[in-house]
Amino acid sequence: MKRIDLRSDTVTKPTEAMRRAMYEAEVGDDVYGEDPTVNRLEELAAEILCKEAAMFVTSGTQGNQVAILAHTRPGEEIILEAESHIFYYEAAAASAFAGVQTRTIPGKRGAMDPSDVAKAVRGKDIHQPRTAMIAIENTHNRAGGTVIPVSNMQAIYNIGREANVPVHLDGARLFHAAIATGQDVKAFTQYVDSVQICLSKGLGAPVGSLLAGTKEFIERARVWRKRLGGGLRQAGVIAAPGILALTEMVDRLAEDHEAAKTLAHALANMKGLTVDLQTVETNIVIVDVSETGKTAEEFLSLIEREGVLGVSFGETQVRFVTHKDVDRNDIRTAIERIHRVVQAINC
Amino acid sequence: MKRIDLRSDTVTKPTEAMRRAMYEAEVGDDVYGEDPTVNRLEELAAEILCKEAAMFVTSGTQGNQVAILAHTRPGEEIILEAESHIFYYEAAAASAFAGVQTRTIPGKRGAMDPSDVAKAVRGKDIHQPRTAMIAIENTHNRAGGTVIPVSNMQAIYNIGREANVPVHLDGARLFHAAIATGQDVKAFTQYVDSVQICLSKGLGAPVGSLLAGTKEFIERARVWRKRLGGGLRQAGVIAAPGILALTEMVDRLAEDHEAAKTLAHALANMKGLTVDLQTVETNIVIVDVSETGKTAEEFLSLIEREGVLGVSFGETQVRFVTHKDVDRNDIRTAIERIHRVVQAINC
Amino acid sequence: MKRIDLRSDTVTKPTEAMRRAMYEAEVGDDVYGEDPTVNRLEELAAEILCKEAAMFVTSGTQGNQVAILAHTRPGEEIILEAESHIFYYEAAAASAFAGVQTRTIPGKRGAMDPSDVAKAVRGKDIHQPRTAMIAIENTHNRAGGTVIPVSNMQAIYNIGREANVPVHLDGARLFHAAIATGQDVKAFTQYVDSVQICLSKGLGAPVGSLLAGTKEFIERARVWRKRLGGGLRQAGVIAAPGILALTEMVDRLAEDHEAAKTLAHALANMKGLTVDLQTVETNIVIVDVSETGKTAEEFLSLIEREGVLGVSFGETQVRFVTHKDVDRNDIRTAIERIHRVVQAINC
Amino acid sequence: MKRIDLRSDTVTKPTEAMRRAMYEAEVGDDVYGEDPTVNRLEELAAEILCKEAAMFVTSGTQGNQVAILAHTRPGEEIILEAESHIFYYEAAAASAFAGVQTRTIPGKRGAMDPSDVAKAVRGKDIHQPRTAMIAIENTHNRAGGTVIPVSNMQAIYNIGREANVPVHLDGARLFHAAIATGQDVKAFTQYVDSVQICLSKGLGAPVGSLLAGTKEFIERARVWRKRLGGGLRQAGVIAAPGILALTEMVDRLAEDHEAAKTLAHALANMKGLTVDLQTVETNIVIVDVSETGKTAEEFLSLIEREGVLGVSFGETQVRFVTHKDVDRNDIRTAIERIHRVVQAINC
Repeated sequence: MKRIDLRSDTVTKPTEAMRRAMYEAEVGDDVYGEDPTVNRLEELAAEILCKEAAMFVTSGTQGNQVAILAHTRPGEEIILEAESHIFYYEAAAASAFAGVQTRTIPGKRGAMDPSDVAKAVRGKDIHQPRTAMIAIENTHNRAGGTVIPVSNMQAIYNIGREANVPVHLDGARLFHAAIATGQDVKAFTQYVDSVQICLSKGLGAPVGSLLAGTKEFIERARVWRKRLGGGLRQAGVIAAPGILALTEMVDRLAEDHEAAKTLAHALANMKGLTVDLQTVETNIVIVDVSETGKTAEEFLSLIEREGVLGVSFGETQVRFVTHKDVDRNDIRTAIERIHRVVQAINC
Repeated sequence: MKRIDLRSDTVTKPTEAMRRAMYEAEVGDDVYGEDPTVNRLEELAAEILCKEAAMFVTSGTQGNQVAILAHTRPGEEIILEAESHIFYYEAAAASAFAGVQTRTIPGKRGAMDPSDVAKAVRGKDIHQPRTAMIAIENTHNRAGGTVIPVSNMQAIYNIGREANVPVHLDGARLFHAAIATGQDVKAFTQYVDSVQICLSKGLGAPVGSLLAGTKEFIERARVWRKRLGGGLRQAGVIAAPGILALTEMVDRLAEDHEAAKTLAHALANMKGLTVDLQTVETNIVIVDVSETGKTAEEFLSLIEREGVLGVSFGETQVRFVTHKDVDRNDIRTAIERIHRVVQAINC
Repeated sequence: MKRIDLRSDTVTKPTEAMRRAMYEAEVGDDVYGEDPTVNRLEELAAEILCKEAAMFVTSGTQGNQVAILAHTRPGEEIILEAESHIFYYEAAAASAFAGVQTRTIPGKRGAMDPSDVAKAVRGKDIHQPRTAMIAIENTHNRAGGTVIPVSNMQAIYNIGREANVPVHLDGARLFHAAIATGQDVKAFTQYVDSVQICLSKGLGAPVGSLLAGTKEFIERARVWRKRLGGGLRQAGVIAAPGILALTEMVDRLAEDHEAAKTLAHALANMKGLTVDLQTVETNIVIVDVSETGKTAEEFLSLIEREGVLGVSFGETQVRFVTHKDVDRNDIRTAIERIHRVVQAINC
Repeated sequence: MKRIDLRSDTVTKPTEAMRRAMYEAEVGDDVYGEDPTVNRLEELAAEILCKEAAMFVTSGTQGNQVAILAHTRPGEEIILEAESHIFYYEAAAASAFAGVQTRTIPGKRGAMDPSDVAKAVRGKDIHQPRTAMIAIENTHNRAGGTVIPVSNMQAIYNIGREANVPVHLDGARLFHAAIATGQDVKAFTQYVDSVQICLSKGLGAPVGSLLAGTKEFIERARVWRKRLGGGLRQAGVIAAPGILALTEMVDRLAEDHEAAKTLAHALANMKGLTVDLQTVETNIVIVDVSETGKTAEEFLSLIEREGVLGVSFGETQVRFVTHKDVDRNDIRTAIERIHRVVQAINC
């Protein structure tokens, strides 16, 4: 039985072309700034994201943390969505390393209300930390891969500018937002001071992310990356598939979005499963299994026995992610298998 | 014109007896543990709070921060109320020094719903920070001096015990809760692992707070206090009035509560001022001035000209605090003066 | 038997005049900047130290740590003497809170060779931390209360200026240096950017220190003091004796220096005890007891039985400190008692 | 003119076999622990280093920092050699992230005197930080690639055991020590609690290092690696050449050592250049150029024009490193070119 792995798009494996690119990569010592492939990737990313400069990092977490370290000082505060990756899934690194306090705002489908953001910016009293950064996540993972509209980003950016607070975009899945809305990524990145994008999720590269911003910001960021142990040597071998990720793999995300919709509709029709179809804008499907009487963990266990993998997203919530290594047939098979499990539960 | 200062109970000045106690204090070098007055105060506090040991600190902030440093490690998370003093008014020190992430829960009159707390305790996934402390504030300043019921504290304490997470009580105004409900402070402190109380607010001592907990906890806390620069020499001179604060000044808090109620009722009857009378349980009165068409800052400015002082508590919210240095006549005068201001606005 | 306590000048108790000053102190809420006595003390200290502004802190450690926090950022480096108080006795707070690396230089009688300091300033390579502060300690405690000459401070200050690195003076016993050399303290403080002085050691105040520097520096320092829990309320009660410490107690330090010389000469003549008389410039005497065949701890134990107290300063080193609460007779008695102990050992 | 790059062995490029290994690597999502190639590399490293477990990290700096984070707590102290990589070249990350103070001991050819280490371990006084780790670097880069003898490591390890302080080995070039002395690496690693080795220096892999220790230590280390952003996805693509580095590339280090000796002897015979030949034990040659009247930077500039690259190692010190991408002919050519430069200077 073929395992259909819908746990995350992080499980995607490099393509044949990516493997060949690694094999052939022209390399140098990137700590000396001499790896031509890394330099090409960084220039390419800066151009795509419409920022002055970009820097290769080993993960989305590293990109976000470097951004926080470069934007803030200890004893300051950052504003971010209550279920955002930085707050939820980065093991409190922002407080551990940058020493900043997290001020969370519950969003609607992942989008913070600009007026909430405005209210959360701190005043000048000595008892209060200075607000030093606002973070936006687009698409928003825990909200179900939802797209944060450009207009929302613009409104928050304007609040930031007025208060002299930089805005950072956790764009681990930013290309999904672009593809889903038919917009260029620049439409989103124009309203942030820094942005992090992942090469290793939907875009299929084995390892790596990029952080982009002003030249001066990236220069400071390089020192923090060094401290985090992210200064690599012949990094060209992993930058090479990254170039392909950005140039060859973006358009096909549309297929993943299609697959997610197919899966979501099928699941929504199964007895005991609840899906908010409106949130299925990209490649993520969140299913509530509470009416089956099972917990998320129990449900995942049952479908795993049938060869379908997802992850728990709360007491009774299960997340599935579509990606390049599951095709239409796989989705069809996954639906059939889950259906069998649900029928068995309902008997 | 006599200024009536209702900004905070922190403005209270030491009594004649306290001044005499400072004058006569028997002292020694407390870094060597040889100040008899400090030792007496620490034993007294431990006994009153029903904890194994207590330690003198120079402020409520220092007491809270030492507790966090002694309970947690960097990269862990603490759960606390969204408007609590530790989150709102300690300049992000918990993240700056202890390196912990703040997970805030919006409370109802300052009380977190235990089921929200239970949900906020983290799981074991490598992406998630360990939950290392839960903080409760009683009475709750920004909620208007509200009392957190013992039953609420008990429920949260049980969640903490089950998850092996210590509970800390920011009891800067804990004696107000005790007096307002006619309970012993032990009724509250039995449900926490550590507690901080202030001597310099309603109790009238010039300087200082106490942190109490197990012997082993206080031992670790002493090292952190030293790092924060809170290891003092002949601290007996400030511990002496602290002893009077705990032994002579607690019962009179009832008068402050009475005064707050008088003030609150009078203000609630003035056109344009809104007071939620149910929250006026202790010595704090929060007034919404939005219907006067004035901002908090504007309103404060107008009443300051009449010799009445309060502080801003948001865009259109003003806080007044009653305390031992304002008597019934002062409250009456303050009401008259505010009334004059409100009438002038309404003309 | 009267105990003669030569462990430290920190054991000094407040004078009658200081107690009266506490009793009578005019006070206010210093967090609002309204304590007139604190304000007077801060102005007085700024004037004496010839700096724009000064701030009251609760201890020398707090003053030093606030200085480091205000001068540096995490991931930077500070240069300091290998046996300095900040490095040796502040429980690594500089690294714990400010996140700075300590680069130590072994001094000669506590004075760092300026050429060593110049070499220790870091270059611009990405692998290297930026040098962010240089600290000098004067008088130098572990070197035996030695005076760092003004010329040495000037040379280091010039290195700092050239490299754009601020110099901080841990002047816990700075007045001893001034009295011992017949110079004004300004002769020393002109060559530093910030300075911390203690009121509670030789000057006899019960509690407290002051940090001085530019207005802008002290403004930033106030925020860090708040985070450390050093923002006090009616601090005037401890500031009042501090004013006396600065105005009435400085000149009498000469007596302590005289007493230390008397003690040092007597000890140097006892068989088995070694004292470097050249280091006895102020109120500290360091004695090597190795030729008695005893460890420092053993020796201290023996003299404690005779009612004389000192502290261990290494395997076979003992430190004695003279101060206002031991007079000539006490010194004479202490010498006799120690002599008895040494004779008994030598028998 | 062919550039002969002797700046560092970090400039080595992956071999054809390594490129092929990347191309063919079996991969999975390492955050889920499912990358078989990473798992194989980690098991292999644990076996070679004789530790219970090992973990892939992206750089030597990351391996060292994770070790410090997992061994220590903020406010503690680590003992390390005064010119060690952790102290000198990791941008103060240990203090920035782990919050530990660095206590440096000047070594002799990179080896700390065990009695100095023993004296540097702190006592229990509240003013003193706890000693939480001792670090050894072998071979020692700034000392000139010198080997720290096993006996020295054993003596330090015993001090650590007695004081309950773990010992960490920065073994970025540990295999050089093993090859140079004809010992197994286990001879060295038996006397440490944790060890970091680099794949990307002399061993020629493009990227990566390994950290090894007890299972429990590595488990804690994984959480810190995650926070640093070192949790990768299909890391097998870089682990694959790492396996070859450990299995195919170790023995050939002998050639680099031979080349270094050849180079060192030739340089030692040139007028104006000074080389301490006794320190040339492995693949590093440090040359003092002061008698040429040139600074290191000037000298490097002159030889760069002739196509030979080295790095500055101080005012008048230059470092050359031999490695797999320079062969005997290259060394001969480099010697000729440097000779030409020296002759020109001496004219």
